[in-house]
Amino acid sequence: MMVRFDPGEERIAVTRNFRVWEGGGEYNVARGLRRCFGQRTTLVTAVADNPVGRLLEDLMLQGGVDLSHLKWVEYDGIGRASRNGIYFLERGFGNRGAMGMMDRGHTPVSQMKPGDIDWDAIFNTEGVRWFHTGGVYCALSPSTAEVAKEAMASAKRHGVVVSFDCNYRPSLWKASGGRAAACRLNRELAQYVDVLFGHEGDLLDTCAAASGPPWYDSESYEAMSKRIQESFPAIKVIATTIRRPRTANRNDWGAFGFAEGNVFESVKFDDLEIFDRVGGGDSFAAGLIYGLMEHKGLKWALDCGVAHGALAMTTPGDSSMATLGEVERLMGGGSAAVQR
Amino acid sequence: MMVRFDPGEERIAVTRNFRVWEGGGEYNVARGLRRCFGQRTTLVTAVADNPVGRLLEDLMLQGGVDLSHLKWVEYDGIGRASRNGIYFLERGFGNRGAMGMMDRGHTPVSQMKPGDIDWDAIFNTEGVRWFHTGGVYCALSPSTAEVAKEAMASAKRHGVVVSFDCNYRPSLWKASGGRAAACRLNRELAQYVDVLFGHEGDLLDTCAAASGPPWYDSESYEAMSKRIQESFPAIKVIATTIRRPRTANRNDWGAFGFAEGNVFESVKFDDLEIFDRVGGGDSFAAGLIYGLMEHKGLKWALDCGVAHGALAMTTPGDSSMATLGEVERLMGGGSAAVQR
Amino acid sequence: MMVRFDPGEERIAVTRNFRVWEGGGEYNVARGLRRCFGQRTTLVTAVADNPVGRLLEDLMLQGGVDLSHLKWVEYDGIGRASRNGIYFLERGFGNRGAMGMMDRGHTPVSQMKPGDIDWDAIFNTEGVRWFHTGGVYCALSPSTAEVAKEAMASAKRHGVVVSFDCNYRPSLWKASGGRAAACRLNRELAQYVDVLFGHEGDLLDTCAAASGPPWYDSESYEAMSKRIQESFPAIKVIATTIRRPRTANRNDWGAFGFAEGNVFESVKFDDLEIFDRVGGGDSFAAGLIYGLMEHKGLKWALDCGVAHGALAMTTPGDSSMATLGEVERLMGGGSAAVQR
Amino acid sequence: MMVRFDPGEERIAVTRNFRVWEGGGEYNVARGLRRCFGQRTTLVTAVADNPVGRLLEDLMLQGGVDLSHLKWVEYDGIGRASRNGIYFLERGFGNRGAMGMMDRGHTPVSQMKPGDIDWDAIFNTEGVRWFHTGGVYCALSPSTAEVAKEAMASAKRHGVVVSFDCNYRPSLWKASGGRAAACRLNRELAQYVDVLFGHEGDLLDTCAAASGPPWYDSESYEAMSKRIQESFPAIKVIATTIRRPRTANRNDWGAFGFAEGNVFESVKFDDLEIFDRVGGGDSFAAGLIYGLMEHKGLKWALDCGVAHGALAMTTPGDSSMATLGEVERLMGGGSAAVQR
Amino acid sequence: MMVRFDPGEERIAVTRNFRVWEGGGEYNVARGLRRCFGQRTTLVTAVADNPVGRLLEDLMLQGGVDLSHLKWVEYDGIGRASRNGIYFLERGFGNRGAMGMMDRGHTPVSQMKPGDIDWDAIFNTEGVRWFHTGGVYCALSPSTAEVAKEAMASAKRHGVVVSFDCNYRPSLWKASGGRAAACRLNRELAQYVDVLFGHEGDLLDTCAAASGPPWYDSESYEAMSKRIQESFPAIKVIATTIRRPRTANRNDWGAFGFAEGNVFESVKFDDLEIFDRVGGGDSFAAGLIYGLMEHKGLKWALDCGVAHGALAMTTPGDSSMATLGEVERLMGGGSAAVQR
Amino acid sequence: MMVRFDPGEERIAVTRNFRVWEGGGEYNVARGLRRCFGQRTTLVTAVADNPVGRLLEDLMLQGGVDLSHLKWVEYDGIGRASRNGIYFLERGFGNRGAMGMMDRGHTPVSQMKPGDIDWDAIFNTEGVRWFHTGGVYCALSPSTAEVAKEAMASAKRHGVVVSFDCNYRPSLWKASGGRAAACRLNRELAQYVDVLFGHEGDLLDTCAAASGPPWYDSESYEAMSKRIQESFPAIKVIATTIRRPRTANRNDWGAFGFAEGNVFESVKFDDLEIFDRVGGGDSFAAGLIYGLMEHKGLKWALDCGVAHGALAMTTPGDSSMATLGEVERLMGGGSAAVQR
Repeated sequence: MMVRFDPGEERIAVTRNFRVWEGGGEYNVARGLRRCFGQRTTLVTAVADNPVGRLLEDLMLQGGVDLSHLKWVEYDGIGRASRNGIYFLERGFGNRGAMGMMDRGHTPVSQMKPGDIDWDAIFNTEGVRWFHTGGVYCALSPSTAEVAKEAMASAKRHGVVVSFDCNYRPSLWKASGGRAAACRLNRELAQYVDVLFGHEGDLLDTCAAASGPPWYDSESYEAMSKRIQESFPAIKVIATTIRRPRTANRNDWGAFGFAEGNVFESVKFDDLEIFDRVGGGDSFAAGLIYGLMEHKGLKWALDCGVAHGALAMTTPGDSSMATLGEVERLMGGGSAAVQR
Repeated sequence: MMVRFDPGEERIAVTRNFRVWEGGGEYNVARGLRRCFGQRTTLVTAVADNPVGRLLEDLMLQGGVDLSHLKWVEYDGIGRASRNGIYFLERGFGNRGAMGMMDRGHTPVSQMKPGDIDWDAIFNTEGVRWFHTGGVYCALSPSTAEVAKEAMASAKRHGVVVSFDCNYRPSLWKASGGRAAACRLNRELAQYVDVLFGHEGDLLDTCAAASGPPWYDSESYEAMSKRIQESFPAIKVIATTIRRPRTANRNDWGAFGFAEGNVFESVKFDDLEIFDRVGGGDSFAAGLIYGLMEHKGLKWALDCGVAHGALAMTTPGDSSMATLGEVERLMGGGSAAVQR
Repeated sequence: MMVRFDPGEERIAVTRNFRVWEGGGEYNVARGLRRCFGQRTTLVTAVADNPVGRLLEDLMLQGGVDLSHLKWVEYDGIGRASRNGIYFLERGFGNRGAMGMMDRGHTPVSQMKPGDIDWDAIFNTEGVRWFHTGGVYCALSPSTAEVAKEAMASAKRHGVVVSFDCNYRPSLWKASGGRAAACRLNRELAQYVDVLFGHEGDLLDTCAAASGPPWYDSESYEAMSKRIQESFPAIKVIATTIRRPRTANRNDWGAFGFAEGNVFESVKFDDLEIFDRVGGGDSFAAGLIYGLMEHKGLKWALDCGVAHGALAMTTPGDSSMATLGEVERLMGGGSAAVQR
Repeated sequence: MMVRFDPGEERIAVTRNFRVWEGGGEYNVARGLRRCFGQRTTLVTAVADNPVGRLLEDLMLQGGVDLSHLKWVEYDGIGRASRNGIYFLERGFGNRGAMGMMDRGHTPVSQMKPGDIDWDAIFNTEGVRWFHTGGVYCALSPSTAEVAKEAMASAKRHGVVVSFDCNYRPSLWKASGGRAAACRLNRELAQYVDVLFGHEGDLLDTCAAASGPPWYDSESYEAMSKRIQESFPAIKVIATTIRRPRTANRNDWGAFGFAEGNVFESVKFDDLEIFDRVGGGDSFAAGLIYGLMEHKGLKWALDCGVAHGALAMTTPGDSSMATLGEVERLMGGGSAAVQR
Repeated sequence: MMVRFDPGEERIAVTRNFRVWEGGGEYNVARGLRRCFGQRTTLVTAVADNPVGRLLEDLMLQGGVDLSHLKWVEYDGIGRASRNGIYFLERGFGNRGAMGMMDRGHTPVSQMKPGDIDWDAIFNTEGVRWFHTGGVYCALSPSTAEVAKEAMASAKRHGVVVSFDCNYRPSLWKASGGRAAACRLNRELAQYVDVLFGHEGDLLDTCAAASGPPWYDSESYEAMSKRIQESFPAIKVIATTIRRPRTANRNDWGAFGFAEGNVFESVKFDDLEIFDRVGGGDSFAAGLIYGLMEHKGLKWALDCGVAHGALAMTTPGDSSMATLGEVERLMGGGSAAVQR
Repeated sequence: MMVRFDPGEERIAVTRNFRVWEGGGEYNVARGLRRCFGQRTTLVTAVADNPVGRLLEDLMLQGGVDLSHLKWVEYDGIGRASRNGIYFLERGFGNRGAMGMMDRGHTPVSQMKPGDIDWDAIFNTEGVRWFHTGGVYCALSPSTAEVAKEAMASAKRHGVVVSFDCNYRPSLWKASGGRAAACRLNRELAQYVDVLFGHEGDLLDTCAAASGPPWYDSESYEAMSKRIQESFPAIKVIATTIRRPRTANRNDWGAFGFAEGNVFESVKFDDLEIFDRVGGGDSFAAGLIYGLMEHKGLKWALDCGVAHGALAMTTPGDSSMATLGEVERLMGGGSAAVQR
C-alpha cells in the first residue's frame, strides 16, 4: 500500500500539483472486488503511524476494504527506521509512455517477518474464501517472500483458494538477482498456487532477459499452459493479459486463460482508448477472481476481468470506478452511447 | 433549465469536485442562437427563488439569453413544494459512455399550467419570429404538455415559425407511458409544427420499443420523410441527426433533412473526436434554425447545424463555445491548423 | 445524509465550481465518533440508488461509518418519487454570515415509516451502547418523528443510552407549525431522552419566537436546567453550546452542561478563528458523547466536545479532521506552535 | 519572450482561469537546449520591469536559461510607453484548431535598436558557439530586423554558427508588407545564415500567397534545397518540418534536411497524438541544433529534432518537458509501454 | 473595462494560475446597480474585437450590464494599434498590501474622441436617469477627458443626474501632470457634477502631494464640504469613503456625506475583515446611487453604500456578489450568524 | 533540500491534492538572498537522480540558486539505498497549529562524508563571501556534522564569514541524544561561527528540556549574549527571533541581536497576520545576512530580517515572494494600503 502522487496532465519533474490516490498491486485487487463486485475484502499489511499513514487509511476507508488487519507501526519522526511507501506515476500521452518512480524502501510491510501474523487464525475463523498475493509483495525483502510463503501455506491448509500475480517489476528485483531470482521464487511458491496470473516466463528456470510479456495465440497459449501444468500440477487456472500499447492513449487489450485442459480467449478490445493504464492488470485480476468465486466459468471470468480492466483504464487512479452493471454491459458488447 | 454538475475527468460517484454549467434542451438552442449566431433570444420558464436559482440566473446571463420572461417562484426553504432541477452528467471516455442522472422532480417549470403565460402577448407584441420547444419540456408533467400545446397554437396563430425537437428520453417517460405515450403526444402536437427535429419513430402510432434512432441513407430518409408528411402535412421541414458512437471519444456525425419534397444530406464527420457529447443535438438545432431564419436553404442549414454541433462537442458543457466564423470555416472543410 | 455543495471562497450564486462533502446532523456525530474518537458507529438511513447516492456511499465509506444499515431505494430516474437530499452551504466571511440552502424534499429518509426498521433487532443483537438522533431528522416529515419515537423507545427498552439534539431549523418547520410544533414534539420525546443537547427554549410549552439560543451564565444555566429536569425527569444530562458570532471568521465558543444537579462550564474560546463553522455543534456532540461513554465526567466531556468542535471549525466541510491527540492538546491549553 | 495565457480544456473567450507559461520562438529553442539537452544557453532581450516582467523572470529561471543579458526597462505604470508582451493560446480539440492571439505591441524588445547590444563583446568573450534567431523577432519592428542583422553579422565575424527560423506569422507582417516583405528581409539576411529553418517559400522573390508550408517528398525537397543553395550559397544546412494536421489531436509529423548536397528524411510519425501542438517547431530546432553541435550528422539531428518536437507536443505549454533519454528512446522506435 | 488577472493566494510574479474577473471603476458601479440593486444599466465603451474582447463580453454578460452601446473595434492581430486593457491585481495579506499593475495603454476606449458617441440620442431617447463617470476614464488620454466633458454636458442638458468619482490614480497621471493636473480637470468638470465622490484634495487648486485621502470627523467634513460647495455650487451631494487599512485583512470602513447643508456619517465598520479590498469604493458608489435614485435620503444611501462596499470586500473579484437583502440586513446591524 | 507537500486549506491526512514547494533550512536562506536581495548564492548538496530529484532541480532553478555544486547520486529504483527527502507540512488555522512530518531518512545528503567536497577549492576560487549552515544539516547523520565542521573550518581559513542557525528540531535528534547532544555539537562548532542564529539554550552544557525558545527583553538578552560571548569568543554576532504564536493565524514577531557588546531590538510586529509560518526564521536569516553583507549595521539588519520574515509568512510555501522594495517599505512602517 502506497500513496500515489499523480501529476495529471503534466509531468512529475515539472509539476507543482499532485493528485493523490492509493495503490498497490494486491490492494487494487481487494478494492476492485469490494467496490465494483460487492465482495467483502480485507488487507493484511503494516503502515507507519504518521500523517501519510493516516492519509492511506483515509484513502483505504474510501476504498471500502476492511482495515481490521492493518498493523500500525510507530514512526521515528524522520523516516530512518520505517516509513510509508509512496510512488510517483504519470500517465503518459501518445508517444510518451506512462512513467513511474517507486520510493518504497524501509516500509513496515517490507520488514514483516514470518510469525508476525497469525494466518491460521485469519483463515480459520473469519470465513475467508480466497487469498491473493503476488510478486510485488514478495520482492520487497527476503522476509516478505517468507511471509508470503507462510500465508499461502496456511491458506492452502484451510482450503482457501490461493491466487498469485507474478507481476515482475525490474526495479524491485534489480538489487536481488533480477528476473532469474524472481522466477526461482515463483517456482518455489507454485506448489501453493491455485490460480496463477502470469506466464511461462515467470516460472522458467532458464528464464531469459525477455523484455515484456510474450504475445500469444490460442495455440501457443495452450502449449505454454500445458508445460506449466506439467511442472506445477497444483496450479489449476492460468490467466494472462495481452496488452499491446500502440501509444500511451491506445492499447490492444485482451486475455487468455487455461483451466482443466482448455484454453479460453477473452473478448478483445483493439485500439482501446486509455486514460490511465495503471491498475489495468489488477482490475483484470479482480474481475477474474469474482467470476471464479461466482462459478461463472473461466470464459465469463476472463471477459469480466478484461472488461473491468478496460473500464479501470478509462479513469484516473489505479483502481476502477466502474459498477458491475457497466462491466456486464461492456462484456455484452454495449456501446458507448450516452445513458440518461 | 437546470444546473449541470460535471465531474470532469472523474466520475459522479467518486469525485469531490464538480464544475457547474447550465443546460436544458430548449435553452441550449436559445443560447447557441444568441452566442454563436448573434440572434436575440428569450426563455420562458420558471425558477425557484433560492441561491441555486440565482446561480442559474448568473449562468443564463452569461449565456446572453433574455431573462425578462423568467418567472421567479417562492422557495419553501426545503424543496418539498418546488425546487430547481439539477442533473449530473459525466462525459464518458473510450468504452465507457457518457452517463447522466436527472434530479428534476417538483420543478416550477413542471408545475406550469395553461393560462400561466400570456403567449399571445409575447408573440403579438415582441416581434418573435421563431418559437422552439420539444419533447423534454412536454414530458415534465401532464400540464407542461398542455402548456406546450397552448404556446404552439398561439405561435401558429401569430405566424411565428414553430420548431419541435422530439428528443425522447426514457427516464422522463418511464412513469407515464413510455415511448408510446410520447409518440401519441407528438402526433397531437404535429399540427402546429413547421420544423420537426426527429424521425418517424417519434410519431408512429405503432411505435415499437426501438432502442436509439434508426440509421438512414438518402433513400430511406426520403421514404420516411414522405410518410411523415403524408400523415402530418403541416410539417414543412424534417431534420434528423445521425450519430454513431464508435466510442465515447469518437463518433460519426452528420444529418439528413427534408423540405419541399427533397432530401439533403449534410457534410459528414467520420470518426469525429468528441470532448463532451452533451448538447450536440441542441447545437445542431441552433445552427439549422439560424440557417433557415437567414434563408440559406436547407442544405446550408444542415451543414451549419452539423458543424455547430461538431464544434459544441469539442468543449466541455452543454453549449457551444464556437463563433460563427469557426462554424463557417468548418462547413467549408477548414483544417485544424493553428491560427495565430 | 446529504451531499453538501461548497463553493469555497466564492458564493453559491456565482461560482462555477463546488467541492462536495457529506453532511447531516446525526451523521456528523457518528463520523466524529469514528474518525476522531475511534468508536465503531453505524447509520440507519435510506438512500436513493443513483449516482448521487453512490457518491454519498463513497463519502460515507471515507467517513468510516458502518453502512450495513443503509437501505437502498430504487430511483425513478427523474426525482419525482424519491431523491437524495443535497444542500448548498457557503462558509461566509467577516460581516457576511455563512449561508445555506436545503434541497431535501422527497428523500427516502423522509419517507421512512414506523415498522420499516427492526430496531429491537439492532439494539438487542449488535451490542449498541448509544443511540443518537435529533430534531432535524424528526422534522423531515410526520412519519420520521414517529420513526424517531419508535427507535428511542426501543433503545430505552434495551438499556441503550439515548441522546437527542434539538437542533431547531426554521426552514424545516416552516410549513408544519414552526418552533411551537417543534417544542411540542420535543416534549413528547423527552421521556426517552438521557442526554439532551438543547435548552429550555426547545421544550417550553410557551416557547416564544426566540431568535437564536439564549446566552447563559452558570447561574442562569443551573436554574434553566433544573426547570427542565423538574418537567422531564428522565433527562439525566443537559448540554448546550454557547456561540457568539462576532463575525463569520471569529466566534466566542464554549458550552455549559448539567448533570446530577451540578452545572459545569467548559473551557471557553474567546475570539476563536473560524474557517467553516458548519458542523461545530455536531462535533461538540461527538466529543461530549465520547467523554460520557468513557466515563470521564461531564466537565471533561464538555471540554472534549468544545475542543473537538473548535478544531472542526478550523477545516472545511461539516466534519472534523482532528485527531484525539489534537483534541486533548487543545483541552489542555496547547498552543498553536508548529509541530515538526 | 511573452507570458502565455492558456485556458486548458476551455476556450479563451469563456474561461475564468488561465494557466501561464512563458513562450517565444527563440526562447523556446534556448530552453529546450538547456533543459532537455543540457547545453548552457542565454537570452538577449528586454523586459519591462513590472510584476509581469518579474513573472517572466520567474518562468525563465525555471527554464534554466541564463538571464545575465536581460535588459530591464522602466515601466510607466500604465503600458503606454513599453509593456511586456502576452499571448493567449488555446490548444484546440478535434476539428477545432488551436487558436492564438498576440498582444505584443509596444514591447521593449520591439524597441531595441542597433547599437543597444554589444554583440561583439558577447560573441568574443563568452565562448558562444551558436546564435539562433528568426523571423518572429525580425517582424516585431523595422528596428528589430536591423538588430537581428547586426547580431548575425557579428556572430558570423566571430565564427559563431548562425541559425535562422523563418517562421512566417501573418499577424506580425499584416501591417508591414505581408509575406512578400518577409521574404525580402529573409533574402537579405540569408548571407549570414548557416542553418536555415524554412523552405523556398520563405525566400522566393516571387513569393506567392501560399497558405501553409508545402508538402515535400525527398525528390522535390532536394530540388528545392538546391535552388536555395544556388541563390544563397552561405546556407549550409536547410531543415524543414513536415506537419499535416488531421485534426487538432492528431498530426502527421516529420522533417526533411539538406546538407552538403544530400537530402535526409527524418523518422516519421503518422497519426501522432497531440496534446498541445504549440512549440513543436521550436523543439524541433532545439533537437536539430543539439545534434549538429554534437556532430552527430544531419540524419541523427533531424531525428532528434523530430522526436523532441513530438515529445514536446505531448505536454502542455510551449516547451518540452522531455529528457534526453526519452528523446533517444523515441528516436530508436521505443514503445509507449509503462516504465516503473 | 479590463480583464483582471488575479493570482488568488499567491503573487503575480510567481504564480502559474490566474483567475480572471472583469473590472473598471465605472463598470463596477453599473454592475453593482444591476446585480445587487436590480437597476437596468448600460455601458458606453469600446472594445477591440479579439478573443480577450470576447472574454470581456462574456464576463460583462454575466454581470448583466446592457452591452448595446459597446463599440467593437477591429484588432490588428498584434496589439500595436489598439488592444484591450488588462490589469493584474493581488489582494494582499496582513502586512503585505494589495498590489496592482495596469497594462492599459493603447485601448480603444482611450482613443475615443468627442463626437464618437451621440450622447444626446442616448440621454434623450433611452430613458436614462443617471450618468456616472469619473477620474479614471478621464485620465486615459486627453481625448477621453474631452469625451467625459461632452457626455456630462449632454446629460446635464437632458436632466440626467451626473455623478463623478474623482478616484485619483498616480500611475494614470504620472506622465501627464500628476495630481495637480487631475485637480485642474476636476475643477473644470465640476460644473456638470450633481453627486461628487471625492474630497477637497481632488479639487483644490493648491492641491498638494497628499498621500492618500484625509481622515475626517463630522466637523471637519462639514467645513470641507462647505468650502467645496462655495466654489462649485452645482455639486449637490458630496460623498467620501473613509478607509483606514490596519492590515490588508482588516480595515476601518465608513463614509461621510453632505447634502443640502447637512453632514451625515454612515454606519461604521471598525476592524472590518477584508477578503479582497478592490472595488469597495465602486460598490459604495453603487449603493449610494441606488439610495438616492430611490429617494431614501442621504443617510440611508450612505449606509447602503458602506454596507454594499463592506460585503463586496468579503468576496474575490472587483464586484459585489451580495444581494439587496444582505445589504439591508447589514445596514440594520445584522449578525454574521449562519442562515439555513 | 526536500520537496514539501502542502495540502493548502485541508489537512495532510484527508486531502486528495498537494501543492509542492521546495524547502530546507539552509536552502531557504540562499533562495531568499537570491530572489529578494539579488545576491548570487549556491547550494552544496546531493540529490538522488530520479524524477523527484528532477522536480527538486526544477523548483531550485525557479529559486534562482546556482546548482553547479549539486551532486547527482544514482537512484536504485526503489528507495532503499538513497532517496530524496520529502516532507508534508500543513499551515494550521486558528487553534490548530501548523503540523509537519519529515520523511527524510536515507537521503544522499545525509550520507555525505568528510572529503566528499573540496571546500578549499570552493572558498578559494569562487569568490565566496559568506557560508551559512546550521543544526538541521548537522543532525542528519553523524557524518553530516563532520562535513559541516570541515566546511566551517575551511571557510574560516579562507576568511569567509560563517553563520550557523542552531534550529533545534526534536524529531531529528530523537534517536541520537536529543537536545543535550545537539548542544554538545553546537559547542564544538562554535569556534568557527561568526554569526550565530540561536540562543543560550542551544549551547548550554546543562541544557535542560526547555520547550520552545525563551522570551527575552533587552536586558535579559544582553546578559544572555554576554554569557555566550564569554564562553565562545569567536562569535561576533548573535541574533534571535522572538515569536509568540497567539494562534496559527496571528503571531507576535520580532528579534533581538547582539554585536560588539550592544543589544539591538528589531521593529516588532504584534498580532502579525500569518498565512503560512513555515520559513519565517530562514527568511529572517536571509534578511539579516543581507544587512550585514551590505554593512548596514545590526539594527538595520535585524529590521530587514524581521520584515523579510514577516512578508515571507504572508504567502504560501517556505520561501519569501517579497521584493527588496517591499521589505524596505515594511521596515519603514509602510501601511498595507493598495498600490496601483
